[in-house]
Amino acid sequence: MTSPVNAQPFQFDLLARDGRARAGVFHTPHGDIPTPVFAPVGTAATVKGVPPRDLKELGATLVLANTYHLYLRPGDDLVARLGGLHTFMGWDGPLLTDSGGYQVFSLRDIRAVDDDGVTFKSHIDGSLHRFTPEKVISIEDNLGADIIMTLDECAPPLDRAYNQEALRRTHTWAERCLRAKTRSDQALFGIVQGGVFDDLREQSARFLTALDFPGYAVGGLAVGETKTQMHHVLDLVDPLLPEHKPRYLMGVGTLEDLFEAVARGIDLFDCVLPTRLARHGAAFTHAGRLNLRNATLSEDRHPIEEGCACYACQHFTRAYLRHLMRADELLGLYLASIHNLHFLLDTLRHIRQSILEGRFADLKRQRVGS
Amino acid sequence: MTSPVNAQPFQFDLLARDGRARAGVFHTPHGDIPTPVFAPVGTAATVKGVPPRDLKELGATLVLANTYHLYLRPGDDLVARLGGLHTFMGWDGPLLTDSGGYQVFSLRDIRAVDDDGVTFKSHIDGSLHRFTPEKVISIEDNLGADIIMTLDECAPPLDRAYNQEALRRTHTWAERCLRAKTRSDQALFGIVQGGVFDDLREQSARFLTALDFPGYAVGGLAVGETKTQMHHVLDLVDPLLPEHKPRYLMGVGTLEDLFEAVARGIDLFDCVLPTRLARHGAAFTHAGRLNLRNATLSEDRHPIEEGCACYACQHFTRAYLRHLMRADELLGLYLASIHNLHFLLDTLRHIRQSILEGRFADLKRQRVGS
Repeated sequence: MTSPVNAQPFQFDLLARDGRARAGVFHTPHGDIPTPVFAPVGTAATVKGVPPRDLKELGATLVLANTYHLYLRPGDDLVARLGGLHTFMGWDGPLLTDSGGYQVFSLRDIRAVDDDGVTFKSHIDGSLHRFTPEKVISIEDNLGADIIMTLDECAPPLDRAYNQEALRRTHTWAERCLRAKTRSDQALFGIVQGGVFDDLREQSARFLTALDFPGYAVGGLAVGETKTQMHHVLDLVDPLLPEHKPRYLMGVGTLEDLFEAVARGIDLFDCVLPTRLARHGAAFTHAGRLNLRNATLSEDRHPIEEGCACYACQHFTRAYLRHLMRADELLGLYLASIHNLHFLLDTLRHIRQSILEGRFADLKRQRVGS
Repeated sequence: MTSPVNAQPFQFDLLARDGRARAGVFHTPHGDIPTPVFAPVGTAATVKGVPPRDLKELGATLVLANTYHLYLRPGDDLVARLGGLHTFMGWDGPLLTDSGGYQVFSLRDIRAVDDDGVTFKSHIDGSLHRFTPEKVISIEDNLGADIIMTLDECAPPLDRAYNQEALRRTHTWAERCLRAKTRSDQALFGIVQGGVFDDLREQSARFLTALDFPGYAVGGLAVGETKTQMHHVLDLVDPLLPEHKPRYLMGVGTLEDLFEAVARGIDLFDCVLPTRLARHGAAFTHAGRLNLRNATLSEDRHPIEEGCACYACQHFTRAYLRHLMRADELLGLYLASIHNLHFLLDTLRHIRQSILEGRFADLKRQRVGS
């Protein structure tokens, strides 16, 4: 996809709306991202088991990497000295780094949270570290992703008092992140928090919108609330966020969630599910998840999914994949990962096309039944 | 490489000699194999971690698979019902299956060897199985490789009495394999045994040559004898084997051994080393093996090998590979495997070219110092 000649850095072109679903293009220094889009997760500067050339072939246009993991190993300063994350991991397309907030708070090995920042133990060697908004921006600056995220405090979605306190910090931290940011080739996204509480979500959306970020994430979802609650938060936030900025729903990747979120105006997604499930032997199909270790597949001559254009489905049978999984062969993990990534990336391409053609609701009904 | 119009099945065209080194082409139903050649090992119907399309890109022209492993899992009958090994594993180039003899005898969990065959325990579930020459040919028939091997008894190379007894069986089994073979699209190779004993090796070469196999392997080497003893056996056997049949040195894959064996008339090699060492973090270079976990590489911006044309060296630094190895990332195993396979496949291509151009001795001196 080529940029319009006059595209500004991090301009978001909204090309079509279908209901509240949106199709657009987000321009970044490393290329254009057609939206809605799914970003494969490359936690430790690699999408597990998948070479960058395969990501290109799969049509990935955005890859996520984890600030927390890369800060600890190999170290963001080292990555900077080696030319930044794009060069280091051999991915020249758009990159997004999270802030590490989610990892720090979900590891639950926190030593202290205060208004200044959070002290935590490394999951690798138990050493103590401290993230402040300024520190996180400096790490993300070193890594050099196109899209970077503010440090936020992730609270359990149903705990009102906790969310209220966390939100106050998250907002102060968002302001400090904005002030700390220096690179003009990075877009800093704010993260709307507030759990399942309407007033907190609304307060968060209004506060962050006033800070005029080039994009917004909706955080703290898909972490324990019901689907109804998730949909309600998305419904609530949608009209409060600026129309001409991309919206990112963090960590969401089931087929149903993707469709429901696109239907509520979300443009960006990331999730470890396609590669994680692949490593456990599960493959995505239109009929649901297929357990590749299942004995019923031992003589199955079909590909994982009939008609699928991925390398795995074009060349290998379920019987072969079952054999690889049973024998704990690396190729099984690779082929299942390729397929699962293709499944989601291709689904998002179909979603985008359906929005451009005004038939998103039909596609949604066909794919997830409602 | 295209076949001459009048090439017979399993014709071996000897194109050039340089000293005793040979350059040729072995014609098979799944394509031509330029020799000398190195065959990556795909034990369980997969070269560990390397998709078939990468093998093609690396220029592999022959892949080995293990009869013992495939018989036990997924079962040769299953592979046959699924269209044979080429189809099953998605490799449409030439394939070679060993006889399983080496695995059965080296696992040392043999229950009984007699003149009829050998009874052994499965390494997977401890169940009892029996290989006879007829059984092994029937398994290899089911798998459908282009080159198949006779069942042989592998004796410790320095034990004369054992070798004498084993040789008697190996020769009877070779005759029985020949009689049992039915498929005209498979070439059955005989295996010269006899340990380090001149008279036994000579006896074996003469006996098997008289049976007129389309190719010959030299077995029982690189399993405990000295380099001098190995070279002596190859020197001894070379003039005894028919000139216009390919010769295969089983299980050999160090750079020095490859050069020394080519210098003694060997055409085919296979070895698990490139992929096995890669999984342990070792990469082949012209300066020797590089430990990719080494802390000295943490900021090394060079590829594994400067000037190497492989995907790993074209796109990634030693620093990145060290990071992947340290973080136990699958991509590290993949990239190191790709590099090591390229290193040996490319070395064999250079060897072949040097033979065609009459400068093999120069190349050998340059690459291994003598």
